[in-house]
Amino acid sequence: MKPQIGEESPKFRKFRAKAHELIFEADTPQGKLFDVVLLILILISVGVVMLDSVPDYHKDYSEILWILELFFTFIFTIEYIVRLLSVRKPLVYATSFFGIVDLLSIIPTYLAFFFTGSQYLIVIRGLRLLRVFRILGLHNFVNDSLSIVNSLRRSSRKIVIFLLFVLMVVTILGTALYLLESDINEGFNSIPRSIYWAIVTVTTVGYGDISPITSTGQFLAAIAMILGYAVIAVPTGIVSTEFIRTGKRIQHTNISCPDCGAEGHYHSARYCFKCSAPLKDEIIES
Amino acid sequence: MKPQIGEESPKFRKFRAKAHELIFEADTPQGKLFDVVLLILILISVGVVMLDSVPDYHKDYSEILWILELFFTFIFTIEYIVRLLSVRKPLVYATSFFGIVDLLSIIPTYLAFFFTGSQYLIVIRGLRLLRVFRILGLHNFVNDSLSIVNSLRRSSRKIVIFLLFVLMVVTILGTALYLLESDINEGFNSIPRSIYWAIVTVTTVGYGDISPITSTGQFLAAIAMILGYAVIAVPTGIVSTEFIRTGKRIQHTNISCPDCGAEGHYHSARYCFKCSAPLKDEIIES
Amino acid sequence: MKPQIGEESPKFRKFRAKAHELIFEADTPQGKLFDVVLLILILISVGVVMLDSVPDYHKDYSEILWILELFFTFIFTIEYIVRLLSVRKPLVYATSFFGIVDLLSIIPTYLAFFFTGSQYLIVIRGLRLLRVFRILGLHNFVNDSLSIVNSLRRSSRKIVIFLLFVLMVVTILGTALYLLESDINEGFNSIPRSIYWAIVTVTTVGYGDISPITSTGQFLAAIAMILGYAVIAVPTGIVSTEFIRTGKRIQHTNISCPDCGAEGHYHSARYCFKCSAPLKDEIIES
Amino acid sequence: MKPQIGEESPKFRKFRAKAHELIFEADTPQGKLFDVVLLILILISVGVVMLDSVPDYHKDYSEILWILELFFTFIFTIEYIVRLLSVRKPLVYATSFFGIVDLLSIIPTYLAFFFTGSQYLIVIRGLRLLRVFRILGLHNFVNDSLSIVNSLRRSSRKIVIFLLFVLMVVTILGTALYLLESDINEGFNSIPRSIYWAIVTVTTVGYGDISPITSTGQFLAAIAMILGYAVIAVPTGIVSTEFIRTGKRIQHTNISCPDCGAEGHYHSARYCFKCSAPLKDEIIES
Repeated sequence: MKPQIGEESPKFRKFRAKAHELIFEADTPQGKLFDVVLLILILISVGVVMLDSVPDYHKDYSEILWILELFFTFIFTIEYIVRLLSVRKPLVYATSFFGIVDLLSIIPTYLAFFFTGSQYLIVIRGLRLLRVFRILGLHNFVNDSLSIVNSLRRSSRKIVIFLLFVLMVVTILGTALYLLESDINEGFNSIPRSIYWAIVTVTTVGYGDISPITSTGQFLAAIAMILGYAVIAVPTGIVSTEFIRTGKRIQHTNISCPDCGAEGHYHSARYCFKCSAPLKDEIIES
Repeated sequence: MKPQIGEESPKFRKFRAKAHELIFEADTPQGKLFDVVLLILILISVGVVMLDSVPDYHKDYSEILWILELFFTFIFTIEYIVRLLSVRKPLVYATSFFGIVDLLSIIPTYLAFFFTGSQYLIVIRGLRLLRVFRILGLHNFVNDSLSIVNSLRRSSRKIVIFLLFVLMVVTILGTALYLLESDINEGFNSIPRSIYWAIVTVTTVGYGDISPITSTGQFLAAIAMILGYAVIAVPTGIVSTEFIRTGKRIQHTNISCPDCGAEGHYHSARYCFKCSAPLKDEIIES
Repeated sequence: MKPQIGEESPKFRKFRAKAHELIFEADTPQGKLFDVVLLILILISVGVVMLDSVPDYHKDYSEILWILELFFTFIFTIEYIVRLLSVRKPLVYATSFFGIVDLLSIIPTYLAFFFTGSQYLIVIRGLRLLRVFRILGLHNFVNDSLSIVNSLRRSSRKIVIFLLFVLMVVTILGTALYLLESDINEGFNSIPRSIYWAIVTVTTVGYGDISPITSTGQFLAAIAMILGYAVIAVPTGIVSTEFIRTGKRIQHTNISCPDCGAEGHYHSARYCFKCSAPLKDEIIES
Repeated sequence: MKPQIGEESPKFRKFRAKAHELIFEADTPQGKLFDVVLLILILISVGVVMLDSVPDYHKDYSEILWILELFFTFIFTIEYIVRLLSVRKPLVYATSFFGIVDLLSIIPTYLAFFFTGSQYLIVIRGLRLLRVFRILGLHNFVNDSLSIVNSLRRSSRKIVIFLLFVLMVVTILGTALYLLESDINEGFNSIPRSIYWAIVTVTTVGYGDISPITSTGQFLAAIAMILGYAVIAVPTGIVSTEFIRTGKRIQHTNISCPDCGAEGHYHSARYCFKCSAPLKDEIIES
């Protein structure tokens, strides 16, 4: 887990401390500026890819958009390399959630040289915006996010049970409609497709691309709708209950581990929960 | 209730104890393996039937899929017979929920020799997956399921009242639209069909296969939508309240009755709640 | 409020006591039988009208269905007259909710002699099924209904505020789409129709009979959907809160006032809350 | 913030006190009458604009509706000017929420002389109806509105987090469908449009104007629907929790500041929370 080679030169240590402060911390003015610039670059680069997918723009501005895209990817690639260098345990960072997202955010553009269309995958770059809360120094947002995630985690078992129940209902319902209407209604020409229709119906989405035409089929569909309409109460009840039970909120800082870049440490934390490195010591040193 | 004939040979008793342990219990390694294999077989056999219903696959692989289907049904038939033999009160098992589901899971294939298409009914086999919780030894899942079921049971009266109210609303609404638009709109050509439309609207499914075209009709539809949109709050409120009230959770084991195969006994239970047979004694004996 | 003329003959008093017991009370075997027969007749007569509206049945069985309809209406007319005679204050009964529903349930058939189609209005007869709870002697259902109604009444102000907010949103949204797309999209050819579309969208019904085609229109629609999707939380939260606060349940009897037929008296009630007549005295007398 | 010029003549002071009482207060009979008349005028003028947008009416009654519209705007313009004169700090009023709404309610008609169609913007006049609660002297409505707003404000952070999550889901989902179906399905011809489809799906609106046609696309759509169906539980849970926590209700008066017209003062308030002017003193003086 410690991929650094031999002794580090004091110059490199200083560079790393500086880079870590700039990239991972948001408490200094420079760190904040860096984060805001990054945020804007991400938004623009995602916007560029979206524009490029619109036929009208693609026809006229295809080349300039592609150059912009290459430019942004170049910047993000440099940023990714500096990130790796600025932590003492680059492997831990590279295999963390944000490490993987950072990598996935630059690969699609390079892949586009070989596979046309893959550049659109860079919308995954949007996931980097999850850092937005830390960037803005909004501790309350981080705490609220964690409180939602915790509520959902505690109710996850019940939600899984509910989803299994829904899956069984749509399977049986879809098969019933397939048996009823497959001969006369093109929309129900296979069981998987009928199950797709059943999901569209029970979740109250209701595209209308497939809909029953026989009286029995419409009767079954009506029952499915009322079931779906009433049954939505179950996950809501489950989640509400957990939210109400979750009174206390855990306090988190926006300190980032100097060794592996992990985030979400407690105020009282002195060591990284992921790689056990002491927190903030390098900043104190420098 | 005791259909065993005369005295049982010690050999048969031993076989039954062994079979019961293998099929009904999930605590021994063999019992667990049996359950997991069964789970996989069920999933594959349901998948086979679904594939068979897709026109492209049906054209090319109809025969091989049908042979597979026969093979799975053969296995499940043997399993069903062994299940019947392994309990001391086969009739109690055969008339229990899982006993009926087990039977319904094999009949459709045999019926398919006489009625084309009936083999698709075996998706009911999916209900056997409800055993999945016991199979995985996940007591918490069983407890959570029971807690959801209990909450729903306690709020069932209120939900029935709510559904009766919804039924009245859609009946009156459907009739109103029938009177308004039956002459000019093919979609409202009968009251039952207009009620079907009203259900599609109030539950916010909204296929769009039938929709009002007159101003008055659209006005009534708009009221129905807002009503349906606001009224969804009622079942949610009912269920949430019950979930919040249901603080305590009942603890259940995954022991299965040696006589009738009933499941869901309390930790403190010493006798089966369904047939009064002492629990676990045969296992202790063997 | 006391329309009885002069002194009543003892014979009439006896008839009225008997009729009241039969029609309004559900505690005696005859009273129960009467209610169940009535329930079945209502369901059949509503079914007859619905069948009559289906083109296929209308063509072949129009006459027999009409005769059946006349027959049922005849029975309900007699029942209505006896109901009026069996209470001491017929006017109070006639102007009560059930009195009006009872009258509205028979008028449409007679109107059908003058206005074709009006017979379909008798589906309002379905409202008489609200008596079903009393008929079945299910006090708990009555109590639960009242508990739901009370919760809704207490949260009615908040729901009205919420609906006013929704109305403003859909008005502004509909006008915006009208200004954007009225020239190029037939669906938005007037503001009321655009508001209809906005309601279809915000309530997540989504017929698809009208949908925006410009980018700006789709962008606004997307915002409206997310708003509607998130805002559904508000009425749910309001109603849930009231349901949770409503811990105590009010106990009601299924006694019916001998003078005006009002229902829903408390167990401790000795006088009718609507016409102040002493409760149950006639039954005790007879 | 004090734009009054020099000393005010006693006559003007008296006029202002009178006008303020009439327009801003609802406790006197004249004040109430003024508010009710205003309410009716607003409703009629909005109705006139809506009628004008319906092609059938526009053809026949275009001129009379336009004259009516001018007439109403003239009245509202006078009212706006008197409102400005009746407060001592007109700038504070003019830049308040209702001040801006009042201005926006009259501008569109004048703009219509230059830009055809802009008169429809006056539906924004509908926002003036928010005063309806004060007009009717319904303190409870004001309190309930504030209680809803407070609950939403307290849960706003969590709702923002939830919406960001939804935005990320629909972005990734829309891009996935674009990559899958852009070549064969006209509906997914650009990423923004695919995201529009994803929003239509996840919010369970489901127009059906765009829907996936490949098996993989329908599979992804089904997952999105179930996700959207289950995830609606989250905002509901958040809001319900806040509603339940919000036990206490803040009491507000319907007194209006004599200087800037601000509303929503506490019963114990003696000074305006917006411009610090003493409350009610002029009324006491006059």
